[in-house]
Amino acid sequence: MMEKIKIGAIGLGRLGYQHAENIAFKIPGAELIALCDKNEEKLNETVKAWGIPYSYTDYDEMIKNEELDAVVITSPSALHTTQIANALEAGLHVFSEKPLGTSVEECKVAEAAVEKYPDLVFMLGFMRRYDPSYAYAREKIKNGEIGKVVLFRGYSQDPESCIEGAIAYAGHSGGQFIDMAVHDIDLARWMLDSEPKTIHAIGGCYAHEEFGKYKDGDNVSALMQMENDAMVFLFAGRTAPHGYNVETEIVGTKATLRIASVPQKNMVEILDEHGVRRECSQDFLERFEQAYIEEINEFISCIRENRKPEVTVYDGTKTTEIAYQCKQAFETNELIRP
Amino acid sequence: MMEKIKIGAIGLGRLGYQHAENIAFKIPGAELIALCDKNEEKLNETVKAWGIPYSYTDYDEMIKNEELDAVVITSPSALHTTQIANALEAGLHVFSEKPLGTSVEECKVAEAAVEKYPDLVFMLGFMRRYDPSYAYAREKIKNGEIGKVVLFRGYSQDPESCIEGAIAYAGHSGGQFIDMAVHDIDLARWMLDSEPKTIHAIGGCYAHEEFGKYKDGDNVSALMQMENDAMVFLFAGRTAPHGYNVETEIVGTKATLRIASVPQKNMVEILDEHGVRRECSQDFLERFEQAYIEEINEFISCIRENRKPEVTVYDGTKTTEIAYQCKQAFETNELIRP
Amino acid sequence: MMEKIKIGAIGLGRLGYQHAENIAFKIPGAELIALCDKNEEKLNETVKAWGIPYSYTDYDEMIKNEELDAVVITSPSALHTTQIANALEAGLHVFSEKPLGTSVEECKVAEAAVEKYPDLVFMLGFMRRYDPSYAYAREKIKNGEIGKVVLFRGYSQDPESCIEGAIAYAGHSGGQFIDMAVHDIDLARWMLDSEPKTIHAIGGCYAHEEFGKYKDGDNVSALMQMENDAMVFLFAGRTAPHGYNVETEIVGTKATLRIASVPQKNMVEILDEHGVRRECSQDFLERFEQAYIEEINEFISCIRENRKPEVTVYDGTKTTEIAYQCKQAFETNELIRP
Amino acid sequence: MMEKIKIGAIGLGRLGYQHAENIAFKIPGAELIALCDKNEEKLNETVKAWGIPYSYTDYDEMIKNEELDAVVITSPSALHTTQIANALEAGLHVFSEKPLGTSVEECKVAEAAVEKYPDLVFMLGFMRRYDPSYAYAREKIKNGEIGKVVLFRGYSQDPESCIEGAIAYAGHSGGQFIDMAVHDIDLARWMLDSEPKTIHAIGGCYAHEEFGKYKDGDNVSALMQMENDAMVFLFAGRTAPHGYNVETEIVGTKATLRIASVPQKNMVEILDEHGVRRECSQDFLERFEQAYIEEINEFISCIRENRKPEVTVYDGTKTTEIAYQCKQAFETNELIRP
Repeated sequence: MMEKIKIGAIGLGRLGYQHAENIAFKIPGAELIALCDKNEEKLNETVKAWGIPYSYTDYDEMIKNEELDAVVITSPSALHTTQIANALEAGLHVFSEKPLGTSVEECKVAEAAVEKYPDLVFMLGFMRRYDPSYAYAREKIKNGEIGKVVLFRGYSQDPESCIEGAIAYAGHSGGQFIDMAVHDIDLARWMLDSEPKTIHAIGGCYAHEEFGKYKDGDNVSALMQMENDAMVFLFAGRTAPHGYNVETEIVGTKATLRIASVPQKNMVEILDEHGVRRECSQDFLERFEQAYIEEINEFISCIRENRKPEVTVYDGTKTTEIAYQCKQAFETNELIRP
Repeated sequence: MMEKIKIGAIGLGRLGYQHAENIAFKIPGAELIALCDKNEEKLNETVKAWGIPYSYTDYDEMIKNEELDAVVITSPSALHTTQIANALEAGLHVFSEKPLGTSVEECKVAEAAVEKYPDLVFMLGFMRRYDPSYAYAREKIKNGEIGKVVLFRGYSQDPESCIEGAIAYAGHSGGQFIDMAVHDIDLARWMLDSEPKTIHAIGGCYAHEEFGKYKDGDNVSALMQMENDAMVFLFAGRTAPHGYNVETEIVGTKATLRIASVPQKNMVEILDEHGVRRECSQDFLERFEQAYIEEINEFISCIRENRKPEVTVYDGTKTTEIAYQCKQAFETNELIRP
Repeated sequence: MMEKIKIGAIGLGRLGYQHAENIAFKIPGAELIALCDKNEEKLNETVKAWGIPYSYTDYDEMIKNEELDAVVITSPSALHTTQIANALEAGLHVFSEKPLGTSVEECKVAEAAVEKYPDLVFMLGFMRRYDPSYAYAREKIKNGEIGKVVLFRGYSQDPESCIEGAIAYAGHSGGQFIDMAVHDIDLARWMLDSEPKTIHAIGGCYAHEEFGKYKDGDNVSALMQMENDAMVFLFAGRTAPHGYNVETEIVGTKATLRIASVPQKNMVEILDEHGVRRECSQDFLERFEQAYIEEINEFISCIRENRKPEVTVYDGTKTTEIAYQCKQAFETNELIRP
Repeated sequence: MMEKIKIGAIGLGRLGYQHAENIAFKIPGAELIALCDKNEEKLNETVKAWGIPYSYTDYDEMIKNEELDAVVITSPSALHTTQIANALEAGLHVFSEKPLGTSVEECKVAEAAVEKYPDLVFMLGFMRRYDPSYAYAREKIKNGEIGKVVLFRGYSQDPESCIEGAIAYAGHSGGQFIDMAVHDIDLARWMLDSEPKTIHAIGGCYAHEEFGKYKDGDNVSALMQMENDAMVFLFAGRTAPHGYNVETEIVGTKATLRIASVPQKNMVEILDEHGVRRECSQDFLERFEQAYIEEINEFISCIRENRKPEVTVYDGTKTTEIAYQCKQAFETNELIRP
C-alpha cells in the first residue's frame, strides 16, 4: 500500500466539517493529521473525537507543519486567495473550496501563486463535476451523443427551510449569482466549452425583502448567449419548498439530457394520501455526498500521479468574472456584453 | 348525418348516471330517449334536467317503447341476465355492465338469449379494453413487440376513502374477486389469449374485519398459471390511501409494459413540502372517463355497422367462472385446478 | 334536447380538418352544416364522406348562408382579421384560430369589429387553456396554492420529424416567437396576470441554416420580467428528437407546478433495451386532442348561455404585440422595454 | 486513528474481486493483507497490482496466518459452511457471502460453529439490507408509517445479456429460488417480521429451454402467506431486456413503498428518439455498489464495537429453508404448508 497523503484542513463549518470527516474516514489514500478553526471548542472536540494529532487556530501556523503534504481550505471566501498563496509558498498542494476569490482581482492573485509553483497541485472545489450523473452526462455530450448544444438550463435552489441562515449571511455571500449560480456557470462552461458573449439578468425579492438591501434577490435568473451561440438559462433561488433542487438540462439537436430533474433523496417512491411521490434531498451535503468524496479522491490521485486536475485556477477566475457580470446585469438592468 | 341510435338506460347509480350522461351529451351517434330507475325523485329530476322524453320505474315497461333501438343496463348485478334476455326478446340491442351474472348459471341464461338473437348486438362493459393505454399495450403484445408473455400482474385497488360504501355493499358484491378482480381476469385473458390451469388465492382483513363475515378480505391476491404457461398475479384491495389504483404489468421476454404504474390524475407534477409528486385518480369514473365513452361509441358503431363487439357473452361467463374459482381457492385455501 | 348550433368551418389543413371533424362527430351541441376550402378536391371528398349539406370555395359566399349560427376559422393567418370582421358583420358568432392577426394593426381591426357587435360571441383558439392539466394548474395558482409566482418557464418544441414542413413555411410563419411562443405568451399572461416590462431574446440556427434568411432561428428563447416582477423564460424550438414537447413550469414561493414535463403519449411505460421509457406525443393534434374539443364545447356553451369566453380579442392583440417585441429583441439583440 | 482490521479474502470471481477491491481501497477501517484463489494467475496479478503482502491458493493455509483478524468468503456456495467453521475455529471473525449453505443440513453445521464461538462476529452477505433505499424503507415500516403490511412484492431479474453465464451455471445454482429469490425471501422476512405458512410456486422456461433439465425455469414466481397474514409475491427471472431489475413494493394499509421501481443507473434522464427514458443498472455490482461497501463497513464496526450484526446465521438457515420449499412447490406443483 502506498504512503498516505497527509492533509491539514481549515474550516469546521458544515462543508468544512464534512470534508474533514471524509478525509479522516472515507478517503483511504489520505490521512487527516491537522485541523484548523477559530472556534476552539469545536476544534478541540473534533480533534479529540477523531484522534487527529495536530490542531491549530492559526492557519499560518498549521502550514508550517512539516509533516503535511497538502491543505484543504473551507474557510470564509474572503480568505481563500491568501491562504492558497501561503500554502503553495509553504510547498503544499492545495484544494480550495469555491469561490476562488470574492473578486476578480483576488482571483488573479491566486492565479499568480499557482503559476509560480507549477509542480504543486491546485484544485478548486467544483464538486458537481465529480457527481456520477454529471460526469455521465458530460461524457455523452463530448461523444457527440446529443448533437450540437442548443440550450443549457441550470437551476440551483436552496430550500426555504434554510432561509434564516441565508438571510443572516446575505451581506457576505456576494449575492445569488456569486454564491449559488457560480456552480451552474462552471457547469455551463464545462459542458459547452464556450464563454458568454451577452448576459441579461433579472429577479427580485418574492418572499424575503431582506435580500433587497444588498441589491440581491431571493430568486434571480440570467439568460446568456455563448460565443458558440448556445443559450444558457440560469435560475438561482432560496425559497424551494421541496428541498435542495439542483437540476440541469442540456438540450441538443440530437437528444436532451436532464440531470436530477427530480432531486430524489433515494430510490424509494411513496404512495400515500399526498399522491405518488419522491422525497427530496434537503441540502448540498446530502445531494452531493458522493461527489465530495470523489473530488478529494481526485485531488489525492493528482498528487500521487503528479498530474493536474481538470478544474484549473483559470476556471475559478473566469467563473467569478461571469458571476460578477451577471450581478452587474441584475443590478443595472442592462444587457452586458462581456 | 346518420340517424341516431335511440337508447333507453336503466340505473342511475354512480356509473349508471355517468353512462346516461355520456349518452345524452357526449356520444354524437346516440340519443338518450328513455331512463329507468326505482328512485322516482332522482329519475324525475334527471329526466327534467336533461329533457329526456320518456321515464320509467319499471324496466319491462321501458323495453316496450317502440322508439327504442337499444338498452344500456347498469342495474344491480343480480338483475343483469333477466334484463338482458328480456331486452333481446323485445328486439333491442343490449349493452350490459359487468358482471354478466352473479353465478355461472345465470351467465348461461344470458348466453342462451344472446345465441337466440344473432342479429342483435350484445356487449359487456369491460371498459378497460377501450382505455387508450390498454388498447395501445394490447396492440404491442399482439404485434409480438414484447416477445412471449412471462407474467401478467394486475392490481385493482379502491381508495380507503370509499371504504364505508364498500363495507355496506359487502354482502352483495360477491367478494373481491367477483367485484373487483374480474376486470383483471378479463384483461389477462384478453392479453394472454389463454385460460388458467391452476389457481391459488390468499388474503385477509388487514384493516377492516367487516369483510370477514362474508368470507371475504379487504385485500386479496391470486396466482394463476395459464395453459400457455404464462403466470398471472392478481391483487385486489380496498384500502389504498393514495387513490384508485388500477395498474397492470405485462412482462415479456423482449419487453415489459406497465400501464398506469402511477395512477396520475393528469399531467401536473407538484413540487412542495411533500416532495415531488403526482396526485392520483380517485375513482373509476375519473380514471376511465374516456374508456366509458369509447365503449359506448363502439357499441353504437357495432349496431350501425352490423358487426359484433370483441367482448362476447362467453367472455362474461368465463370471467365469472374464473372469479368464482379464485373465490373458492381463497375460501378453501386449496390449489384449484380448473 | 336543445337545438344544435349550426356551424360553417373554413380551412381543411391539418388543424382545420381536425376542428371540422370534431364539430361533425364529437361536439354533441354543434352541427357542421358548411365547409369552405380553396382545395376543391379535398373539400368535395370531405363534404361527401361526412354528409355535409353545404360546401364553398369562397368564404364570403359561405357566410351568407342564413342557416348558419357561427363560423370556425382555421384559414391562413393573414386572412383571419378580415374573415372575423366579415362574419361578425354577417351576424355570426366567430371562433378563430390563433394568431388573431399577423400584425398589431390587423389585430386592432379585429378588436373594432368585435366591439361593434357586443351581442356576438368571439373566441380565439388558445386551446391550451382548455387542456385539463393547464386548467387544473391555473386553479391551483388562483387559489394561492403555490404562493407568489417567481418564475414561469414555457417550452414549445416541435419534433425534428416535422422540420421539412417548418422550413417550407418559414417565410410565412412570422418566426418562432409569433408562430410558436405565442401560446406560451398567452399562458404566462393568463397564469401570472401581468404584462412584460423587459424583454430579452436570443437564439440561432443550430441545425437548420434555412431559418436564418428570415432573420429567424430554429431554436430561440426569451427572458422577460413582468410588471409584478415574475420572471418568464420562454424556449421555442423545432428540432426536438423525442416529439412534440410542450412543457410548462410555474415556480412559486410555496410550490412549483410542472405540466407535461414528460410529454407522454399515454399511460404505458416500456422497459426494454432502451431502458425504462415513455413514448411521447408527436404533434399538437395528439397532445391537445381533448383541449381542441373542450374549446369548441366552450364556444358553443358561450353562444347558448349568451356569455363571453375568458379569452378575449384583447388577449389576441396583446399576445401578438409581445411576440413581436420578442422578435424585435431577437433581431436587434437589444433589451426591449415595452 | 484506530488500528485497522486485517482481512484475508477468498474468491476472485466478480463479486469476490469487488469485495477484495473495496476492502483494499474503500474501507478505511480495514486492511486487505491476504488473498486466496485457486486461479494462480489471477491471484498473482491482483496481489501484485494492489501490493497485498500474502497470497494463497489454499484457504486452510490462509487462515493460519496469525496477522489476520477476519476473513471474507466469496467462494463457491458448496464450500461456505466448511470455510466458515474452519475460520471460526482459527479464531477469525467471518463475513460470508450468501447462501449460507446449499442445503439446510449444511446451514445447521454453520449454526453450530457460530454458536460455539460467541465472541466472534459472523455476518452473512445480505447486502440489500445495507442499501440506503432499503434501509430507509425498513425504517418507515418499523415506525408504523405504512400501517399494517398487506403485500410484499419482490422482483429479482437478471438481464438477458447475462443469460449465457446463467445457463452454464444452471446445474450448480440450485435454481431460481435458491440463487436469486433468496434475497427477496430475506427482505420479506426482514420487513414483515414473520415466516411463511403457505407457499405456492409456478413458472417455466419462456425463452431458454436449457433450465428445464434442472427442473428449473428461466422465470418463476411464488405466492406465500406469512403467519401474520401478510401476502408475499416473489418473481425471479433471467430474461429482463432492460437490465438488472431488483424492485420491491410493500403495500401497507396507510402507505405503499416502492424501492427502485425504475432501476435507474443514475440521475440522468434522456429525451431522444426512443422517448423520455432512464438507462438502467446492468448488474448487481452496479446497483448495489454502495451496499457492498456499507455491509463490510458494518462488519468492521461490529468487530471493533464487539457487537453482532443484525443478520444472523439463523437468517441464513431460515432463508435457505424457505427457498427450498419454494423449489419444492415449483417442482411438485403442490401447495406447501411449512
